[in-house]
Amino acid sequence: MSGILFDKVRVVMVNTTEPGNIGAAARAMKNMCLSQLYLVNPQSYPCATATARASGADDVLFNATVCQSLKEALQGTHLVIGASVRQRNIKWKQMDVVGACEAIQKITSVGNQQVAVVFGTEKSGLTNEELDLCQILMSIPGNPDYCSLNVASAIQVFAYQNYIYNTTNEFAKSNKTTASFNELEDFYIHLKQVLEHIKYFEDKRPKALLMRRLRRFFNRAEPEKEEIAILRGILRNIKPFEK
Amino acid sequence: MSGILFDKVRVVMVNTTEPGNIGAAARAMKNMCLSQLYLVNPQSYPCATATARASGADDVLFNATVCQSLKEALQGTHLVIGASVRQRNIKWKQMDVVGACEAIQKITSVGNQQVAVVFGTEKSGLTNEELDLCQILMSIPGNPDYCSLNVASAIQVFAYQNYIYNTTNEFAKSNKTTASFNELEDFYIHLKQVLEHIKYFEDKRPKALLMRRLRRFFNRAEPEKEEIAILRGILRNIKPFEK
Repeated sequence: MSGILFDKVRVVMVNTTEPGNIGAAARAMKNMCLSQLYLVNPQSYPCATATARASGADDVLFNATVCQSLKEALQGTHLVIGASVRQRNIKWKQMDVVGACEAIQKITSVGNQQVAVVFGTEKSGLTNEELDLCQILMSIPGNPDYCSLNVASAIQVFAYQNYIYNTTNEFAKSNKTTASFNELEDFYIHLKQVLEHIKYFEDKRPKALLMRRLRRFFNRAEPEKEEIAILRGILRNIKPFEK
Repeated sequence: MSGILFDKVRVVMVNTTEPGNIGAAARAMKNMCLSQLYLVNPQSYPCATATARASGADDVLFNATVCQSLKEALQGTHLVIGASVRQRNIKWKQMDVVGACEAIQKITSVGNQQVAVVFGTEKSGLTNEELDLCQILMSIPGNPDYCSLNVASAIQVFAYQNYIYNTTNEFAKSNKTTASFNELEDFYIHLKQVLEHIKYFEDKRPKALLMRRLRRFFNRAEPEKEEIAILRGILRNIKPFEK
């Protein structure tokens, strides 16, 4: 997964008033392998507050493209998606974030086609005139009684979902050495010998049933070779193994 | 979906230094129907900066529970998940955010069982001692070369994914009763007493390191209440518990 970069996806912030949000957006983008930040009439940029919040994502922040209008920021794109709370009465093509990521992937998988995802100003989001430039409205699912996310948080959610959508999240193969069948069986034999030695089974439920419970418990942890060695060491301190 | 509230899920912020992040976390939580915020030794709370960033999520912010220690914040929980970058060389049970949400759903679908998701301090995340109290490490997938999210952004991603997971997946009801945090901690104390009693630690690697290995091993099995009772029974047969 190293080296992945969604450089055909622009994040466009329109009329952002808080420079901290621009910095936080740059950080959120870099965290999720996005790099193309467009700023339409930012109230303050560059700005120390933004740089502080970018926290190392300086490259994304300082390479941002500043535009005079949203139209200018959309030049060369093939799909424009506007972030917005869900609209009830108008005829937008509306999607949640996963749907938007699917649409983005379809477009960007062809040639050098590019996509813009547009985020409006903090207080009021995108205006109707700005929404007019969008083909799709993307809404972030959540609390219907409190649905307005901070703009940088909305960008973080989109960036995360886009990353997840485009990567199979297989974790890097671990190189742990699992205990072998024989090591496990010897452990259970030793455990039983110790439990007999400390007179655990007396007055308790049947031995076979208890051993089964313990087996299931230990197996569930998928013991590594080294862990079984530690457990065997503990058992030996109570009673040596009898083969 | 209206009226949904994930009130069995605690978000625990440990040693947060920037009050703005606490406010942003409260907003992110409310956006995604989370309400239980726990603050362990916040540097500044309450604070006007936090209130401004909460932007209407005042209820979540002002109802936050302030604690002196992480252990205090975990009282009464049945699963503790620590947010962390992926660890390469140790034996944690590690999951991405979707996996963590699945584990949370399993626990919280039984009775009144509660879960904590723990986020460390801004500069350095959770310490090893704090991670020792976690059964699962949750890592947020993303850019391997720039993987540290802002803490409030990490909470936003978790909260979003938890909302999505629970509104699009069928509940897989589990009926097993998980051991509580307190039951697990008593088990580890008793285990340590027994290992000292049988002189296991002598001539072995440092006690703290061995206990950490054992904790990770047992935690990985996600012990049920009844299983911990069985293990305690075995320990009692070697040496009674000293409270």
